[in-house]
Amino acid sequence: MDNEANRYLIQFGDNLRKQRIAQVLSQKQLAFETGLTREFINRIENGKVNISLTNIMEIARVLNIAPKDLLNFK
Amino acid sequence: MDNEANRYLIQFGDNLRKQRIAQVLSQKQLAFETGLTREFINRIENGKVNISLTNIMEIARVLNIAPKDLLNFK
Repeated sequence: MDNEANRYLIQFGDNLRKQRIAQVLSQKQLAFETGLTREFINRIENGKVNISLTNIMEIARVLNIAPKDLLNFK
Repeated sequence: MDNEANRYLIQFGDNLRKQRIAQVLSQKQLAFETGLTREFINRIENGKVNISLTNIMEIARVLNIAPKDLLNFK
């Protein structure tokens, strides 16, 4: 993965963590609701893995936010 | 893939096609610029495949739009 892509994954992870914490959800709870594993949620939040559009949609659905709210990049 | 996920992929594909055509780019040109195959671009635009966040970012970069502009869903 190149640096640019990596930078975006890190920002995406930061956005996700902020939204999750704002809703007082644990990684474990978010994992349960989305059907993803806690380990995968953790790796997403740390910008360590790529994520698919359908998983972005599923996470946004559980957080009750618009998917694009997770794609605010500087 | 469930119906809900599929619906989003179709909308994403529609958004992408509109943005690409607005910039008078062919699928072949977009493929060349992003390093993806024309077949993959075609399948994305038809909502037939899932797409990763890093590929969304790369396509948005080439189209010179914000990634979230591709995630406008009704």
